[in-house]
Amino acid sequence: MADDFPAGSVWLVGAGPGDPELLTRKAERLLAAAEVVFHDALVGPAILELAPQARLMPVGKRSGRHSKDQGTIDALLVEAALGGARVVRLKGGDPSIFGRSMEELTALVGAGIPVRICPGITAASATAASAGLSLSLRGIARRVQFVTAHTRRGAALDLDWTALAQADATLAIYMGREAAGEVSRSLIGAGLPGSTPALIACNVSLPDEKLLRTRLDLLPLAVKAFAADLPTLILIGDAVAQGETPVVAPQRKSRVLTRIASSGSMPVECGGQ
Amino acid sequence: MADDFPAGSVWLVGAGPGDPELLTRKAERLLAAAEVVFHDALVGPAILELAPQARLMPVGKRSGRHSKDQGTIDALLVEAALGGARVVRLKGGDPSIFGRSMEELTALVGAGIPVRICPGITAASATAASAGLSLSLRGIARRVQFVTAHTRRGAALDLDWTALAQADATLAIYMGREAAGEVSRSLIGAGLPGSTPALIACNVSLPDEKLLRTRLDLLPLAVKAFAADLPTLILIGDAVAQGETPVVAPQRKSRVLTRIASSGSMPVECGGQ
Repeated sequence: MADDFPAGSVWLVGAGPGDPELLTRKAERLLAAAEVVFHDALVGPAILELAPQARLMPVGKRSGRHSKDQGTIDALLVEAALGGARVVRLKGGDPSIFGRSMEELTALVGAGIPVRICPGITAASATAASAGLSLSLRGIARRVQFVTAHTRRGAALDLDWTALAQADATLAIYMGREAAGEVSRSLIGAGLPGSTPALIACNVSLPDEKLLRTRLDLLPLAVKAFAADLPTLILIGDAVAQGETPVVAPQRKSRVLTRIASSGSMPVECGGQ
Repeated sequence: MADDFPAGSVWLVGAGPGDPELLTRKAERLLAAAEVVFHDALVGPAILELAPQARLMPVGKRSGRHSKDQGTIDALLVEAALGGARVVRLKGGDPSIFGRSMEELTALVGAGIPVRICPGITAASATAASAGLSLSLRGIARRVQFVTAHTRRGAALDLDWTALAQADATLAIYMGREAAGEVSRSLIGAGLPGSTPALIACNVSLPDEKLLRTRLDLLPLAVKAFAADLPTLILIGDAVAQGETPVVAPQRKSRVLTRIASSGSMPVECGGQ
């Protein structure tokens, strides 16, 4: 047992975008050492298999009928750690980017529990990799910005559209599916051309990953037709025009959970030949 | 050999921030399968040891006397792949965030070579993890933005300071050491309070990682006193006030190359006790 994971401590661990190969080596070690793993519902079985010895506890807003509110999650984490367990709190993507880590961190620190963070691959990085593009691009995208478009159903997004509608930046919108119409209208209203390249990524890095290139003014239609109810990230900006992503990445029907099958698409090859 | 890495193909692989445990499991597999590894000079020996079978070729702008220009790097990559080798091009951080990947990608695609990207942990994620904070924070930082402050010596930064000087965003400045004075003056000039929290991270995730909390108006002084000539990332924004980072993270004198030693600091514990 490594000395950075004593009994009664907690690690907040980034699970990355979904492909179990896109966990860090450190996350793999921590999962193998954990006695309890509290995980978001979107963290898939192939990742949880890296902790066969641990008690698995699904928590998190997205877990449907198993949904627990934040206070309950905080209390469960504190209770498990005070009971002397080595606890991993496994979150999709990177804990520091729209991972809502601070509530849990604050609760644990308040209870005197040692807690640390292991970073993860965020969905925007994974999408760029799958699509064969770079979020930054010299002379075209000097700035990369991430926002979340998640909001209570029916509520308007409280975002600074002028700051977001910048031609020299790449914008990554997390959880953008439901708000795609508002995003498109607001960015165009704030001055971004309707022809600005956009890319829709669903289930990025997973065997059933889907990538679609479109443009800002067509985004609402494209998301509606393409994203259904899948976890969706949207990239917007001139840098997105790079790469050669096919309209739909090669499908893999089976949810094969091996390293080989999770290797992603070959965007450059597919588009170039 | 996995079928996603045939002879004569190239993977652009993110090496993460420095800690060999912060490579992805996929990067580890690709390194173990590579016949040639072209790597940035900042990629450390503990990472290169993951490819003991491969021919190691230092390239990249930061490699001092071994420095090669981009055209030469492109040509070397193409030559190695056309010669039938399995080639890894290993870049610090994430290839899609200020990794200058597109030049190489374009050259390889132009030569008909299959090329794909494996994402990496970007320095901003690693810094947030080490400092025990979240880049996004509900009600405080709804937006996270990344810029690079790297420029030719003496040239002014060509950045949109108004867009960057937003109180509701967290700003991560890559390669910000030399431009810290200009960044501080420009952001304050564009309306960001001088008291805005800032964090300086040097050699993040490595045994000699250093983290320093300061404020925007003191940033130039703090960087000068603290960062010397180390690779430096700067975080700016109200979300940076979270966490309990000590002024200087626990030092480890020896460059121990094991998993355990590379486990980072314990920011919350250190600060809270």
